[in-house]
Amino acid sequence: MVLKVYGPHFASPKRALVTLIEKGVAFETIPVDLMKGEHKQPAYLALQPFGTVPAVVDGDYKIFESRAVMRYVAEKYRSQGPDLLGKTVEDRGQVEQWLDVEATTYHPPLLNLTLHIMFASVMGFPSDEKLIKESEEKLAGVLDVYEAHLSKSKYLAGDFVSLADLAHLPFTDYLVGPIGKAYMIKDRKHVSAWWDDISSRPAWKETVAKYSFPA
Amino acid sequence: MVLKVYGPHFASPKRALVTLIEKGVAFETIPVDLMKGEHKQPAYLALQPFGTVPAVVDGDYKIFESRAVMRYVAEKYRSQGPDLLGKTVEDRGQVEQWLDVEATTYHPPLLNLTLHIMFASVMGFPSDEKLIKESEEKLAGVLDVYEAHLSKSKYLAGDFVSLADLAHLPFTDYLVGPIGKAYMIKDRKHVSAWWDDISSRPAWKETVAKYSFPA
Repeated sequence: MVLKVYGPHFASPKRALVTLIEKGVAFETIPVDLMKGEHKQPAYLALQPFGTVPAVVDGDYKIFESRAVMRYVAEKYRSQGPDLLGKTVEDRGQVEQWLDVEATTYHPPLLNLTLHIMFASVMGFPSDEKLIKESEEKLAGVLDVYEAHLSKSKYLAGDFVSLADLAHLPFTDYLVGPIGKAYMIKDRKHVSAWWDDISSRPAWKETVAKYSFPA
Repeated sequence: MVLKVYGPHFASPKRALVTLIEKGVAFETIPVDLMKGEHKQPAYLALQPFGTVPAVVDGDYKIFESRAVMRYVAEKYRSQGPDLLGKTVEDRGQVEQWLDVEATTYHPPLLNLTLHIMFASVMGFPSDEKLIKESEEKLAGVLDVYEAHLSKSKYLAGDFVSLADLAHLPFTDYLVGPIGKAYMIKDRKHVSAWWDDISSRPAWKETVAKYSFPA
């Protein structure tokens, strides 16, 4: 029984998908229809009690939170594919540091841009222009720190690609695409080179090709 | 040269401190005066480029983000003290899941309550009553999920205390104390028992006794 990923067409679950593909782990996907409220039904809440995607079922083991799934997959399949956690305790510390920067510092303003530029009209709430402006400014400040860091380090955690880099893929793909703010990446030389590198990895190209949001 | 923790009097650094004390690791602390803007000075930004606390220096190794520091300490000193990461890949997955729930779901509304109830007047910005109300409602919904979960599980990740539990200590201590909303914990039987358990651990009592915010 292969590992199951619920909600593959949304952005956060793609953190799990790209990790599984990088590691060469077999999996299947199960769509969750958020528009129909499937994520708030008892069957789904039994897998993910907060009602968000993804949820993952691996045999009789259940896990949610996209970055926790990434770590679980990278740890369980450590001996195959790229070592996405780093080889030493110190390397892993840097991976964890940048994973947490993504979760606590990079993602929140980018999520605001995603919700208020891409989804406000679809989801039927008014787009908040003040919040968009503030979030764009906040993300710009974060990206300035990334630019300085990536001028000295090929990837976020060092000279190896890691979960920390991959965690940035799904929502940054929105930023340079449907959000329409590619300039935020392109105008920063080292961030831009890093983005070109990680977004051209075959595992990410496969993720996008197979699990894009249905038009 | 023992490990150094910068900014011990603030809440997030206490995630690192309680972990170090649990694991019996020697450390020293270095105050950072946020009121004087010390965290935005070049000397501190060289340790933590986003200008937040904590920053940690362990010999010639540097790491920041409080939950990443917790993981680094628990991993480096795995053989001493309680195993705060769990013993198996599956246990660690649950630890990571609840660490990420804390970071992405529990903490943001609680941080809003902290800033707008405890710090607005000190920091000179207007307290946002609408945000306080929304954050309290959001946190209540999160705590309802915790209540159901903790009715079936002694600690968040299973039958063992872990980093996931400890990560909740500093800001929940504000919630039941200076924020004045202890009812949110006390009115939920299993959350209340869990809180009494983890907050009475000697490592946490020592953390609070030694590093409380200067009056």
